[in-house]
Amino acid sequence: MSKKAIVLYSGGLDSTTCMAIARAEGFEPYAMSFQYGQRHSVELEKAREYAPRVGAVEHQVATIDLRKIGGSALTADIEVPKDREIEDDIPITYVPARNTIFLSFALGWAEVLESFDIYIGVNALDYSGYPDCRPEFVEAFENLANLATRAGVEGIGRYRIHTPLLHLTKADTIRKGLELGVDYALTHSCYDPVGDLACGRCDSCQLRLKGFAEVGVADPAAYVEGVR
Amino acid sequence: MSKKAIVLYSGGLDSTTCMAIARAEGFEPYAMSFQYGQRHSVELEKAREYAPRVGAVEHQVATIDLRKIGGSALTADIEVPKDREIEDDIPITYVPARNTIFLSFALGWAEVLESFDIYIGVNALDYSGYPDCRPEFVEAFENLANLATRAGVEGIGRYRIHTPLLHLTKADTIRKGLELGVDYALTHSCYDPVGDLACGRCDSCQLRLKGFAEVGVADPAAYVEGVR
Repeated sequence: MSKKAIVLYSGGLDSTTCMAIARAEGFEPYAMSFQYGQRHSVELEKAREYAPRVGAVEHQVATIDLRKIGGSALTADIEVPKDREIEDDIPITYVPARNTIFLSFALGWAEVLESFDIYIGVNALDYSGYPDCRPEFVEAFENLANLATRAGVEGIGRYRIHTPLLHLTKADTIRKGLELGVDYALTHSCYDPVGDLACGRCDSCQLRLKGFAEVGVADPAAYVEGVR
Repeated sequence: MSKKAIVLYSGGLDSTTCMAIARAEGFEPYAMSFQYGQRHSVELEKAREYAPRVGAVEHQVATIDLRKIGGSALTADIEVPKDREIEDDIPITYVPARNTIFLSFALGWAEVLESFDIYIGVNALDYSGYPDCRPEFVEAFENLANLATRAGVEGIGRYRIHTPLLHLTKADTIRKGLELGVDYALTHSCYDPVGDLACGRCDSCQLRLKGFAEVGVADPAAYVEGVR
């Protein structure tokens, strides 16, 4: 019998690749998404549609309201930046404590499922500006997980936060996914889509397009006219 | 100008005492409660009513759905135990990863408010069975908080998780609160109330009644007939 793993899953390129890696590493993926008041709610519709098609045994969408907290272009009424130079500062799309909150929910679900493995597709290269995508953040969460739970008291297992994409470039991630048979048509990355079409200009689209260009493979995602 | 602090606030005896301590320590308390699918939703109505009366500058109720995670008598269809001997095992009322989730939200709000102080009324004595009420859990979260946020990257401040009740008995907490002028009629503790009345028999009621008895003061809460 395979072991269960929670995979934080947005329906995007990174988390879908993570799911394929979890499966390749012998886990049954339990996908977890969040309805967190994001502007790009098409993301969730896509995630619901794609999750079973990319191998999730079960898919749970937890509803949390980060809009009340605010402070990000992804959750408040701040415009998503377009065509910007991606640099090392913390972008306006950073959502305060988001990965901490996501991992906390994953931990709760893991504890109930008796799983000790959580996959998260964070990346320290492309998202070097996000404090909660750094290796030291992941280590601190793993340490916390083992103190916050029954397992920490009863010693029945040890939680591991798996971050297989942490040191990969976007191109490396795409190569890895293609090796594992990921169909990237079943992924959705845009922060600010126009209907079903990706904008091609937000940070997320830019990084994705650059990644596919480096690999030399056509991105199967649907973009608004004029992109590429 | 006083500094802002987030106070995790349930409307109960401990968190209300925490709020009074935060004020005594020079902070403006921003109270945060959670609608997490708890059975005892009267708790939240009371919290909304009491928060401004016990000194909260602002009160936010974040909606999160822990019912999907399940695994606890407080969120799933499992009966709340009555009249049980309170021992050292992890009780069925333990909610997986609850304090981790609560603190994560508090951290997100703190970051937006530019506050570096979070108060949580955890107690290592009365709740020795809860993994996420232990000092090592609190330390691990504080460490995480300073790595998970802009502050961790930009070095603009250091988060502190304040746990003024950590080593107090319930009686000590009540004494402390009375010193600071807390009106315990404006607190609500029961896990399984009958309408507006506390049951007097769940763990939470038992601990509260024992605390007041030790202090030698009448508990101003309203209980069902026959209690006391």
